[in-house]
Amino acid sequence: MIVVMKQGATQAQIVNVTARIEQWGCQTHISEGKERTIIGIIGNGRPLDREQIARLDGVERTVPVLQPFKLASRDFHPQDTVVPINGVSVGDRKLVVMAGPCAVEGSEELMEAALAVKESGAHMLRGGAFKPRTSPYSFQGLGEEGLRYLAQARKETGLPVITEVMAPEQVPLVTTYADILQVGARNMQNYALLHAVGESQRPVLLKRGMMSTIEELLMSAEYILSHGNNRVILCERGIRTFEPYTRNTLDINAVPVLKQLSHLPVIVDPSHGTGKWELVSAVSKAAIAAGADGLIIEVHPHPSQALSDGAQSLKPEPFAQLMRELQAIAQAVGREL
Amino acid sequence: MIVVMKQGATQAQIVNVTARIEQWGCQTHISEGKERTIIGIIGNGRPLDREQIARLDGVERTVPVLQPFKLASRDFHPQDTVVPINGVSVGDRKLVVMAGPCAVEGSEELMEAALAVKESGAHMLRGGAFKPRTSPYSFQGLGEEGLRYLAQARKETGLPVITEVMAPEQVPLVTTYADILQVGARNMQNYALLHAVGESQRPVLLKRGMMSTIEELLMSAEYILSHGNNRVILCERGIRTFEPYTRNTLDINAVPVLKQLSHLPVIVDPSHGTGKWELVSAVSKAAIAAGADGLIIEVHPHPSQALSDGAQSLKPEPFAQLMRELQAIAQAVGREL
Amino acid sequence: MIVVMKQGATQAQIVNVTARIEQWGCQTHISEGKERTIIGIIGNGRPLDREQIARLDGVERTVPVLQPFKLASRDFHPQDTVVPINGVSVGDRKLVVMAGPCAVEGSEELMEAALAVKESGAHMLRGGAFKPRTSPYSFQGLGEEGLRYLAQARKETGLPVITEVMAPEQVPLVTTYADILQVGARNMQNYALLHAVGESQRPVLLKRGMMSTIEELLMSAEYILSHGNNRVILCERGIRTFEPYTRNTLDINAVPVLKQLSHLPVIVDPSHGTGKWELVSAVSKAAIAAGADGLIIEVHPHPSQALSDGAQSLKPEPFAQLMRELQAIAQAVGREL
Amino acid sequence: MIVVMKQGATQAQIVNVTARIEQWGCQTHISEGKERTIIGIIGNGRPLDREQIARLDGVERTVPVLQPFKLASRDFHPQDTVVPINGVSVGDRKLVVMAGPCAVEGSEELMEAALAVKESGAHMLRGGAFKPRTSPYSFQGLGEEGLRYLAQARKETGLPVITEVMAPEQVPLVTTYADILQVGARNMQNYALLHAVGESQRPVLLKRGMMSTIEELLMSAEYILSHGNNRVILCERGIRTFEPYTRNTLDINAVPVLKQLSHLPVIVDPSHGTGKWELVSAVSKAAIAAGADGLIIEVHPHPSQALSDGAQSLKPEPFAQLMRELQAIAQAVGREL
Repeated sequence: MIVVMKQGATQAQIVNVTARIEQWGCQTHISEGKERTIIGIIGNGRPLDREQIARLDGVERTVPVLQPFKLASRDFHPQDTVVPINGVSVGDRKLVVMAGPCAVEGSEELMEAALAVKESGAHMLRGGAFKPRTSPYSFQGLGEEGLRYLAQARKETGLPVITEVMAPEQVPLVTTYADILQVGARNMQNYALLHAVGESQRPVLLKRGMMSTIEELLMSAEYILSHGNNRVILCERGIRTFEPYTRNTLDINAVPVLKQLSHLPVIVDPSHGTGKWELVSAVSKAAIAAGADGLIIEVHPHPSQALSDGAQSLKPEPFAQLMRELQAIAQAVGREL
Repeated sequence: MIVVMKQGATQAQIVNVTARIEQWGCQTHISEGKERTIIGIIGNGRPLDREQIARLDGVERTVPVLQPFKLASRDFHPQDTVVPINGVSVGDRKLVVMAGPCAVEGSEELMEAALAVKESGAHMLRGGAFKPRTSPYSFQGLGEEGLRYLAQARKETGLPVITEVMAPEQVPLVTTYADILQVGARNMQNYALLHAVGESQRPVLLKRGMMSTIEELLMSAEYILSHGNNRVILCERGIRTFEPYTRNTLDINAVPVLKQLSHLPVIVDPSHGTGKWELVSAVSKAAIAAGADGLIIEVHPHPSQALSDGAQSLKPEPFAQLMRELQAIAQAVGREL
Repeated sequence: MIVVMKQGATQAQIVNVTARIEQWGCQTHISEGKERTIIGIIGNGRPLDREQIARLDGVERTVPVLQPFKLASRDFHPQDTVVPINGVSVGDRKLVVMAGPCAVEGSEELMEAALAVKESGAHMLRGGAFKPRTSPYSFQGLGEEGLRYLAQARKETGLPVITEVMAPEQVPLVTTYADILQVGARNMQNYALLHAVGESQRPVLLKRGMMSTIEELLMSAEYILSHGNNRVILCERGIRTFEPYTRNTLDINAVPVLKQLSHLPVIVDPSHGTGKWELVSAVSKAAIAAGADGLIIEVHPHPSQALSDGAQSLKPEPFAQLMRELQAIAQAVGREL
Repeated sequence: MIVVMKQGATQAQIVNVTARIEQWGCQTHISEGKERTIIGIIGNGRPLDREQIARLDGVERTVPVLQPFKLASRDFHPQDTVVPINGVSVGDRKLVVMAGPCAVEGSEELMEAALAVKESGAHMLRGGAFKPRTSPYSFQGLGEEGLRYLAQARKETGLPVITEVMAPEQVPLVTTYADILQVGARNMQNYALLHAVGESQRPVLLKRGMMSTIEELLMSAEYILSHGNNRVILCERGIRTFEPYTRNTLDINAVPVLKQLSHLPVIVDPSHGTGKWELVSAVSKAAIAAGADGLIIEVHPHPSQALSDGAQSLKPEPFAQLMRELQAIAQAVGREL
């Protein structure tokens, strides 16, 4: 960490800051500039609390030098992590596509969707049994009944299943049925939930919050990893910006940035990332071209009857078309689908 | 709701849309413009799912006419709600100031802070026992021990206590000790938690998420109100923007907007809203001038030793000074402190 | 346009609004809902001022039905526009790559860059002679001298030249030397400049402002088109968001959205869109996969000596590598490079 | 400036960076940490280009220590600047209110507005003759005719006049008629215009761009100041965020921040800052409470007939009411109106 002192900071203030830092077992280097004095801190491995130093008299601000995440960092784990899930590997040369309806709405509808996405080549089935909805008056999901339908669809299609878990007390239940636990964007900083899915030792898909930075996403991954659960998949799903035409702004930059900073697999959700089914195909191709390890796409056989997010769901036919087109993109970047 | 059809939508598509809407027991009005046909929907009280309609063939988009929140709306409850809490009323002519350290760090430190803020005229004591922290390596709060210190400080000072609850399973415990349950910004859309605090029938301070719109804040309040718990206090605490100089951008517009749209009391958190103690005084005065019903302010006797958010905590002396200055502002807007 | 009346709007207010609208030669359709009355306006072609109507007594808000842009709209011009520029066509099946240094720094440096990008297959040479810089103390560009170097490089390489014009009075001068006039992001709503480049009848590359919506970009294009100059190329170059890791957030969604809403060619600037040369390659591929008609990329033979934006400039070798990799992506989406 | 080297940077890279820096006449201090080496630069007064250093081999990033603005900085000019304008002083103990219509629409309408705002106690008359409009089809202002009406209104009321200038070539014309040249939000980084108003030696009101940082605002002020024109007034007018309910989000934090960083007067535009006349009163009071030196408010005698921005204009009566209420707020913060 670097400490920038205020213009006119007194010698006593500088001495006090260095004394405090050295008390914590760190060394200091002082550079006296014409207008500001700067104190470099050479750590002892223990993370220092920037805020405490920032409040010492005479300090203007502090600047971090090291990244705050460790287990999620590529510095500490240079090789790509591959997450194996019942025969499917996320993070490997072969891309992974998870597809299915936003919400599980019934046994037959789910089976219809599952068969359709399987036929088109999807590798996993997605579907929400517990749905986070902005309004208490909207459909909140079928709960355990929905989980049972998912398990049944897995049995019949062989596709591993991913579904969202919204609260720590749901983790044991969801773990019984699902192959991957999804932590949704609104819960990216629900720390009780992060601890619970960390403890579960199950694969976790961690979605980036709609107004969370890349660093915060990696810090939330760190919560899960710190429980010894290293099967974490990161998911870029669009951030909130001033642009009103799309529901969110998919942050395509995040794909190469996450691959650079971290060893964890990165997938992209073009359905939430755009909010419009007409844009899903273009953005899916962009995600793969940018280096994503896979996609999670909403597909609904009858989107105009969907109980949630119909506007961003593809019908099976355009999805099949997209899967065909993705083959060529995958090859163009040295991957396969 | 209004349905805007695509340019060139066929008569069959228009008939299909109206048929579907009428099937749901609503009436329709059709306006045929030169380029677009518009269908007005006259509801039967039941909220329609915009997304289902948006996916019907030929539909370009739908436009909501009514606000999606009801119990939180001033349309349905014109008079201001006043929340009484152990002798203090929030939302009344008299302003309410909640003050104390960000985190409860120890029995003595808390008592020192409690006595200081009481002496300066604060009406409630704030302090976190469960702390949501970006990093798993940061101080996470004292937990139940912290709650006990808060209860003790209440006993000795007579100040009601507000503290954060982070997970549904913590609600019974926190309810034992605290007068107001605080739902933090990161949990504003943690629906399991909203249900739990709604069920608790305790006063709730609901902080606006850093990424949440005013409408979403009111929808989250609706979750709590829908459990028959109408003691909800809204809190503006700054939103995330592109401006890097301050930690958040306090949305001062939200104060009059919330007072206009809702009957619930509105308080402001200038400490998180700015992230810098030097700005707290100016922004606190602005909040009261804009019509807020109170403030929640971080005060720490020794901010350079604080275990969290020291950089935004006031020392007791500037806090006392601020309380004196707020008197004049309160009078200027017809309130008292 | 649709007018939503306030709850409890009086009959007199409704009559007044319809009378006013009809006075402007438009027809009205009234839908009386349970809580709100809605007035549909059927236009006479003349755009109505929403704000005037919004201020009539009893009006809650107005909702536009038609897009505010006409000449830029695909509704009015369904076929793709192709902009021919000295033998290169932008918007055609063949992709166009414009490359070169951020700023023209000298005759030799420019020639070195021009030869390098030509050898790698770039189709046009970019380089700034007038540089918009945040600081008055930064290098502001070589001005006309820089323009002369550009013309010379064009002569020797055969590459058409694109360069920025910053003020209306510079238009005649820049037109003398350049093949495409670039309007920079900070000037996207510099209306005097938009008029001047419209009048010039030269091809214009219009960059999206870092704070501008897609609709505003098209409205700015409309300014140029309204002068009868239809050789406008749109450029997505990243928007400003809360994410601090990258300089801007490239809005990949904007590519398919612009292609859907407008007939104008769309290119992407991955150098400004990311601000980091390490990310340029991944994001360039994403842009082409998403349907962009081309790229504008900063390439500098010695980026560590660049006078501006060195951190986002590729060296010639990685640029050559990128051009090779783009071939495969282009083919995968049915284009060629 | 501080240079943070990459993990694993070689000794040769470190030597190369220090050699380069010393070549520019600066000194270096090296701190070798466990994971990263840090190089502090002690300047010779000449601003270094961070980007050039950032591109040297082995450099991870650079961190600025000093603020990039000098003439605008309070460090270099500790006393508040007061801008005298024909008998009115901006930045003094007495607050200044500028009021009038968004656009000058006609001689009579302007006179009616001017008399009304004068009677309520406004100190200056605002009104646009050149109007930046998103659409080429909207009313663009009366141009010089509008300027003449403004001059006439000044003559009859004695109120100094402020109006917007949109292009460098308009500066001489506008200077003939107006007391303050306003640079609008969309032109905050129109550098040709900043140079021209700097050269004019007239008082300038510089509005913050809707997506410009506080630092960028001060850098744009620096452009004007660097021409020896120190009569610059800063104006916070709302920034663009994700919140859709208000047109912009007024950044109240910016008021104390600007007063802290700079000696220049700061005024607030609550009309654009909110976009809704119902919010103007609350936000105006907040601005004064936060320490602003004045306000610029849109007032229109007949806002439902206004040719631009009617929805955010106050009628004369609520404006008069606001002026009365501001008296008490002004006194509460030790100012007068």
